[in-house]
Amino acid sequence: MASFSYAIPLPIRCSTGSNNQDPNKQSLNKIKITGSPTRSLKVDILSQTAGIRQNIPTKKQLVDYHRQGLIIKEGVGYRQTVVIRSYESIRNLLQETALNHVWVSGLLSNGFGATHEMMKNDLIRVVSRMQVQVDRYPIWGEIMEIGTWVGAPGKNGMRRDWLIRSQAKGHVFARATSTWVMMNQKTRRLSKMPEEVMAEISPWFIEKQAIQEDVPEKISKLDSKAKYVNSNLKMEETRDLDMNQLVNNMKYVRWMLETIPDQFLVSHQLSSIILEYRKECGGSNIVQSLCKPDEDGILNSGLKQNNDMSPLNRFSLASEIMEGNGLLGSLDNVPLRYTHLLQTQGETKNEEIVRGKDHMEEKAI
Amino acid sequence: MASFSYAIPLPIRCSTGSNNQDPNKQSLNKIKITGSPTRSLKVDILSQTAGIRQNIPTKKQLVDYHRQGLIIKEGVGYRQTVVIRSYESIRNLLQETALNHVWVSGLLSNGFGATHEMMKNDLIRVVSRMQVQVDRYPIWGEIMEIGTWVGAPGKNGMRRDWLIRSQAKGHVFARATSTWVMMNQKTRRLSKMPEEVMAEISPWFIEKQAIQEDVPEKISKLDSKAKYVNSNLKMEETRDLDMNQLVNNMKYVRWMLETIPDQFLVSHQLSSIILEYRKECGGSNIVQSLCKPDEDGILNSGLKQNNDMSPLNRFSLASEIMEGNGLLGSLDNVPLRYTHLLQTQGETKNEEIVRGKDHMEEKAI
Repeated sequence: MASFSYAIPLPIRCSTGSNNQDPNKQSLNKIKITGSPTRSLKVDILSQTAGIRQNIPTKKQLVDYHRQGLIIKEGVGYRQTVVIRSYESIRNLLQETALNHVWVSGLLSNGFGATHEMMKNDLIRVVSRMQVQVDRYPIWGEIMEIGTWVGAPGKNGMRRDWLIRSQAKGHVFARATSTWVMMNQKTRRLSKMPEEVMAEISPWFIEKQAIQEDVPEKISKLDSKAKYVNSNLKMEETRDLDMNQLVNNMKYVRWMLETIPDQFLVSHQLSSIILEYRKECGGSNIVQSLCKPDEDGILNSGLKQNNDMSPLNRFSLASEIMEGNGLLGSLDNVPLRYTHLLQTQGETKNEEIVRGKDHMEEKAI
Repeated sequence: MASFSYAIPLPIRCSTGSNNQDPNKQSLNKIKITGSPTRSLKVDILSQTAGIRQNIPTKKQLVDYHRQGLIIKEGVGYRQTVVIRSYESIRNLLQETALNHVWVSGLLSNGFGATHEMMKNDLIRVVSRMQVQVDRYPIWGEIMEIGTWVGAPGKNGMRRDWLIRSQAKGHVFARATSTWVMMNQKTRRLSKMPEEVMAEISPWFIEKQAIQEDVPEKISKLDSKAKYVNSNLKMEETRDLDMNQLVNNMKYVRWMLETIPDQFLVSHQLSSIILEYRKECGGSNIVQSLCKPDEDGILNSGLKQNNDMSPLNRFSLASEIMEGNGLLGSLDNVPLRYTHLLQTQGETKNEEIVRGKDHMEEKAI
């Protein structure tokens, strides 16, 4: 069990060009990793760099007093009480609690999250899919209970899930799930999970899923006819290989959402997003963000896709329906879902970096 | 006493064009604030937005159990035990502890850090100068004790200082000091501090200074003849008016340092920086970063400017002197200090945004 929670954004590309949504259904023999990480030299300013914590536990610890963390759920899940700091995002909380889970598990081998057996096999973990649903954004000073655990979605992948609740009332604020696959860091090819690694991590697997999803939602591929296009985007703040790599992922989300027209964004916020990773984007790449509004109307797009909506979300949607939206005209013209594609802008061809599908909701006034 | 720790980056400009380093020596009558905040619409993704904490204490609290915070130093300073999270920077720690200090003080009036009397007077606080010295960067999981307090540097300003120590051994990892002035948020002019505000906050003042500085160091103004110039920089991630505004400040530092040649940055890191704010940079501005290496040699630049160097820094510098630097040639050619200027690139004239002066040190291998 290792850092299931933060992406190691190395270049991943499936040479089959398959649109298959589930990485575990891909034939691993056909998967190739192309290119190499082209990180521009950047400075990590007033920030910890790749400092690796000393005194990493070698055995499972049931309690981490300093972090207010506990091993729970039959001894394999993890729960941490977190007072939200003023700059923290949900992404931050996901990353931190997953790392701390691996920390107390005694499986952590290095600062980048590989387990002992993964290290022996030259394996690292890369995220292939991520889904986050937010019912409410925590704010500065709120006390949250964050649970996280791992599971097996298929033969060669693994899953990490999270549940973020308020400590006071137990309300679920956010849910997240992610799928990870193994990559050989020398050959840069995706790899089957060796038996030793499976033996090491499978005792930690839990069946429970934070987000019920019988069939992973398909994200269609957009092309240059997409309604909204932002071009010539550049990765500005790619950092050295350190624990902050999810920065890149959030940059992806930012690029996606900023392609949606401003007059919509001013009154709406993200309530859920699915990301499917295809290839890492190096610091030197020029990126294009394509975006297509969902063609279904607001009722369809809202209710169909969000079966497990919380009462809070239902209220938000209901009030949207009741009040309309002065900025964007009639209700029928307010799409609440958008499909996204980020691709490199190559001279001869473009390459997919990540597909996305979001669900927006009206902001509370 | 309010959020002395995070900048409210509204446009500030001194119409006198004075190069005076100390904002408290400026004649307030001559100070004008020009322009208005030109924030581009951006989305705050998977992140708390301007959510304002409810149940703000109205009376001083001596202990904040959840945050492991305490009122100390004769009842007016604040100390918090912090386990470093994987994405945290020193800037984050400064911001968070200052906010929490104001929180427990019972003076917090709104989420943007104004006190009750400041609110009545339409005043907000803006940072005019910031200085940070880092002996060692904390890493993920380290337990730090962060002390912070406020003081009066002059008639119309105030100071907030910080000391970041390791809990285990008490070593000082970093020191910081900042100067703040009052601004009327309606007229956008700098303001004298009204007696009611002074009466409210002065009981919290402590004489102690985290960084001894008898005379604030002057930062000379650079012009287009500066050795290194990066042009056409754009503020990409300006966020809505929320608690994350120090992001902008760190963007400034990043722009400054990224103007230093890569072959130097790969082996060196920031050990201290002074920033002097002149004018806020809106999201639509195009920015130019000018940089000039210190002409003094390594010995002068290192030892002269860092009188209160810690043994750690001395060692680092000594080893630098002993070992030389293979990348940049002879020792005499390795400047360790750089002067910076960020300015807007206007069609007719450029305007100063912020001046900076840094001190770099060799990275530990």
